[in-house]
Amino acid sequence: MKLKVKDVNLSTGGPLIVVLNKEDSSKMDLHALDRVKIKKDEKYIVAVVNICENKGIRSGEIGLFEEVFDKLGVKENELVDVSIEKKPDSISYIKKKLDRQELSSEEINAIIKDVVDNTISEVELGFFVSACYTHGLSMNETVALTNAIVNNGAQLKLDRNIILDKHGTGGTPGNRTTMIVVPIIAAAGVCIPKTSSRAITSAAGTADVFEVFANVSFSTDKIKEIVEKTNGCIVWCGAMDLASADDKIIKMEHPLSLDPEGILLSSIMAKKKAVNATHVLIDIAYGPGAKIESVKRANRLRKMFYKLGKKLGIKMEVIMTDGTQPIGNGIGPSLEARDVLYVLMNDVRAPKDLKEKSIHIAGLMLKMVGKGNQETAREILESGKAYEKFKEIIKEQEGNPDIKPEDIKIGQYSYMVKAKKNGVVKRIDNKALVRIARIAGAPFDKEAGIYLNVHKGDKVKEGDVLLTVYSKNSKRLNYTLDVFNKVKIIEIE
Amino acid sequence: MKLKVKDVNLSTGGPLIVVLNKEDSSKMDLHALDRVKIKKDEKYIVAVVNICENKGIRSGEIGLFEEVFDKLGVKENELVDVSIEKKPDSISYIKKKLDRQELSSEEINAIIKDVVDNTISEVELGFFVSACYTHGLSMNETVALTNAIVNNGAQLKLDRNIILDKHGTGGTPGNRTTMIVVPIIAAAGVCIPKTSSRAITSAAGTADVFEVFANVSFSTDKIKEIVEKTNGCIVWCGAMDLASADDKIIKMEHPLSLDPEGILLSSIMAKKKAVNATHVLIDIAYGPGAKIESVKRANRLRKMFYKLGKKLGIKMEVIMTDGTQPIGNGIGPSLEARDVLYVLMNDVRAPKDLKEKSIHIAGLMLKMVGKGNQETAREILESGKAYEKFKEIIKEQEGNPDIKPEDIKIGQYSYMVKAKKNGVVKRIDNKALVRIARIAGAPFDKEAGIYLNVHKGDKVKEGDVLLTVYSKNSKRLNYTLDVFNKVKIIEIE
Repeated sequence: MKLKVKDVNLSTGGPLIVVLNKEDSSKMDLHALDRVKIKKDEKYIVAVVNICENKGIRSGEIGLFEEVFDKLGVKENELVDVSIEKKPDSISYIKKKLDRQELSSEEINAIIKDVVDNTISEVELGFFVSACYTHGLSMNETVALTNAIVNNGAQLKLDRNIILDKHGTGGTPGNRTTMIVVPIIAAAGVCIPKTSSRAITSAAGTADVFEVFANVSFSTDKIKEIVEKTNGCIVWCGAMDLASADDKIIKMEHPLSLDPEGILLSSIMAKKKAVNATHVLIDIAYGPGAKIESVKRANRLRKMFYKLGKKLGIKMEVIMTDGTQPIGNGIGPSLEARDVLYVLMNDVRAPKDLKEKSIHIAGLMLKMVGKGNQETAREILESGKAYEKFKEIIKEQEGNPDIKPEDIKIGQYSYMVKAKKNGVVKRIDNKALVRIARIAGAPFDKEAGIYLNVHKGDKVKEGDVLLTVYSKNSKRLNYTLDVFNKVKIIEIE
Repeated sequence: MKLKVKDVNLSTGGPLIVVLNKEDSSKMDLHALDRVKIKKDEKYIVAVVNICENKGIRSGEIGLFEEVFDKLGVKENELVDVSIEKKPDSISYIKKKLDRQELSSEEINAIIKDVVDNTISEVELGFFVSACYTHGLSMNETVALTNAIVNNGAQLKLDRNIILDKHGTGGTPGNRTTMIVVPIIAAAGVCIPKTSSRAITSAAGTADVFEVFANVSFSTDKIKEIVEKTNGCIVWCGAMDLASADDKIIKMEHPLSLDPEGILLSSIMAKKKAVNATHVLIDIAYGPGAKIESVKRANRLRKMFYKLGKKLGIKMEVIMTDGTQPIGNGIGPSLEARDVLYVLMNDVRAPKDLKEKSIHIAGLMLKMVGKGNQETAREILESGKAYEKFKEIIKEQEGNPDIKPEDIKIGQYSYMVKAKKNGVVKRIDNKALVRIARIAGAPFDKEAGIYLNVHKGDKVKEGDVLLTVYSKNSKRLNYTLDVFNKVKIIEIE
C-alpha cells in the first residue's frame, strides 16, 4: 500500500514506530503492535505500528516518529510503500523465556541486537524483563547477556595488558570512593578507565559529582586519549555507546521497580568488559537501608560475581561493606565533591570513613595486579601524589585543576537540624536523606544537598548540629521540612 | 511547574499520555513512564510521561495526546500546572502478582478500574498479562477478574428471569451456528441477547457475517429495545461498553500471542455476565487444527467453565465438538451468510453439518431452561419459524428481511481447486483455509473467501471440485495461489 509520509514531530527515544489510520490498518489486516516494512526506493526499515483512531493521521497517510524519519531518510509528503512484516525471531525467544526455557547465547544476542536496533517495542522488551524477573537467568544466560550487551555496543580498546576497574552496587549516600581510588591507582601507574553513571534515584552519581570539577561527556576516542596520557579518567558512561542496550532494558525495569539479578549482574559486568577490564573490584554495600538489604542476598551476589567474572575471563575481588549509613559527610554533587577534595588534599576536614574506605579499596586493587597494597595506597594518597594525578585528570577533562574546597559553591539557603537530647546515634535513614537531598534539588542543582555532622556510634549532646540542608531555591528548601515531620532521620538513644 | 499545552495531534487509542521535553523532565526529576498530575483550574488528570529527546516538544511545553486533551478540556497554548504524581496502587498489585502472590478481588478490581480509566500504561498492562500467563490465575482470581471486567463496564439489563447465551471458543472456520441458534431460541419464546465479536485472526466473526444482513453496531439502549421486541439480537460487542477492559487486555496478549487461561475464561464469561445471562452454553471445538488442539486442554477448560459458572451464579452447559475441519461450506462473511440463509430457509443447498450442529446446540439450550429439546429445535427450524424470527431480527437491526441467497454478492474473481486423484478426504487444514480467505480479502472484503465442496470422509474422484476461492480483487486472488504451493490443504488418500 502506498502511503504519504507525515511527520508527527515527536521522538520515541528509541523504538521505531509509525502511526497508521484505523481504516488503512483494517485494509492491510494490521493490528496495533504489528510490524510493517516501509520502503522508499531501495531503502527500507521495519517499524512497529500504532493505530490512530480519530485524528492526526488520515487514511492514505503514514505518521513517522523522528527515529524512523532519520533512518529512512524521507521527506514529508513523499510516498512510501508499506507492507505487513512478520515479527522478528527475537520475539519468539522472549516467548520461550516466558515459557521458562533457557535461552542460547545466539537467542539472547538476537534479542539484544534488536533492542539496540530499536526493532523491539517497549511492551515486548517489558515481557523480556518480566520473564527474566520471574524465571531468573541461569549463569550461562547471564554470561550470554553480558556478552550480547558488549558485542552490540561500542568498546574502549586500550593498548594495555592490565586494566583495572571498580563498581559499587549503590544505595549508600555519599560513598564517593571512586574519585579517590582512580587517582591513587593511576598514580601507581596502573590503567583505570572509569566510566560512571549519573544518579537515577540517588542524590548524586559519580558522573554528577566529578562534573563539579570537569567535563564528563566525551567520545570514546577522546577518552582513549585521556587515559593514555594520565592512566585514568572519570567519565559518564551515558555519553558513549558502551553497553547501550543496558539503558533501554533498565528503562523497562522502572515502571514496576523490577531488578532481576541476572540483568543486574550483566549490566554491571558489561560495562567492565566494554572497557576491556582485566581486573575488577566490586563493592557490595549492604544492610538495612542499603540497596541490598539482606546479608544473604549480598553473599549470593558476591558468589555470582565471582562466577560471572571467571566465565568472562575477568579477575574479580568482591567485598561486602557496611551500607547502613552514608560514607563521607556530603550528600549531593557539590558537597560530595568537596569531601573528595578534602581527602585528596589531606585537609583536616576530610571525612575519615571516606578516606579509609578509599584506601582499603585502592589497596585491594593494587594487590590484585601485584602493584602494592593498602600501605602503598595510603602512601600515594597522603604524599599528595593522588591529588597531583587528580589535577592531571581534571585538566585533561577540561576542568580547572586549581580548584580549592572553598571555590565549590554550596546552596545559599540552608537550615540546621540539632539534637533534641543527649545520647548516641543509633540509626541514620539513608532513604530519607536521599529524598531530602533530591527535594532540595540534587542532583540537577549541584549545590543542593545535606552535610552530615554525625555518623552511627557518635555521642551527641542536646543542641549539637546533626546535619545542614542546602539548596539554592528557598521554596525547594521549605519542601524538605515535610520529610522531617514524617520520618525519624537520625535516631539517638 | 507551569507548562504550555501543545496538541500532538495523535491519539493513543486508550492510555492517557503526555510528552515532556527532556530538560523539563530533568528539572522535575521525572523519568519516562513516571506519572504527572496535570491541572487546569479545578480539573485535573493523571497521565503517563513520555520524554521527547530532540524535537516536537520544547522546554516549557507539554504535548497532549487526544485522550488527555478531551478529558482535561484545555485549549492549545493554555498554561497547565504539572506536578509529579505517585504510581497508582494497582501497579503494586501487578508487581505482587508477578511475585507469584494471589490477588484479592479488591486488588484485581483496582487494576481493571485503572485499565478502563486509562491510567495504566501499555507496558504496565503487559506486565499484568505476563504475570497471569506465567503464574496462572486461581479460580478465585478468575471470578474476581470476571466481576471486575463486568463492574467496570456497561451492562445490559433486561426485565427477564431467564436469559440464554452461548459462546464458541473459536478456531474452526465457518461454524456460524449462532446465527441459527439465536432465531430458534427467540422463536421458542426465550430471551437471547447475543453479542458477538468481529474476526481478529479468523476469516469472519459472527458480527462480520450478520453485517451482511443488517447493522450490528447499536447502543445498549437500542439493543434492549430490539431484544424486548424480538427476544433476540445479533450485535457487535465492540460497539457497546460491555467488558471494555477486555479489549485492552487482549491487545497486550497480541505481541507475544499469549492466551492465559484465566484471562480467556474471564473474558468470555464477563461478556455473558454483562448481559445478565442466567444460562450459558459453551462450545469447545477442539482437535488438531482447532484453536484448542488437545483433548486434555479442552477437558480442563470444560471443568473450569463449570466451576466459574457456579461461582458466578450462571448455569452452564459445556460441550466439546469436533474442531478439526470447517463447519458449513462457506468461509468468509458473505459465503457464511449464504450458508446460514440456506439452513434457515430449508434450502437443498443447506450444509448438513451446520444445520445439525445448530439444532444440537439449540436443543441443549432449550433443555437447560425447560423449554424443549432437540426435537423442539428441529421443528422450529424446519417449520420456518426460526426463519421468520430471523427476518424479524434483521428488520429491527435495520436490514432487509427479504434478502435471498442469490442477493448475497460473492467476489467476482474466483478459481477452483480440483482433486488430483481418486480417494477419501483425510484431512483439511483449517489454518491454511483461513490464511487463504484472509489473503483473498476476508473479513474486510465481505465477498472474499472460500466455498468448500468436501468434508472429511467424503469420497472424491480425480477432477472433482474440492473448493472455490473468491475475491473481488484479482491481485489478492493471485496472492492466494502462493499458499497452495506451500501447504497441502486437503489431503486425499
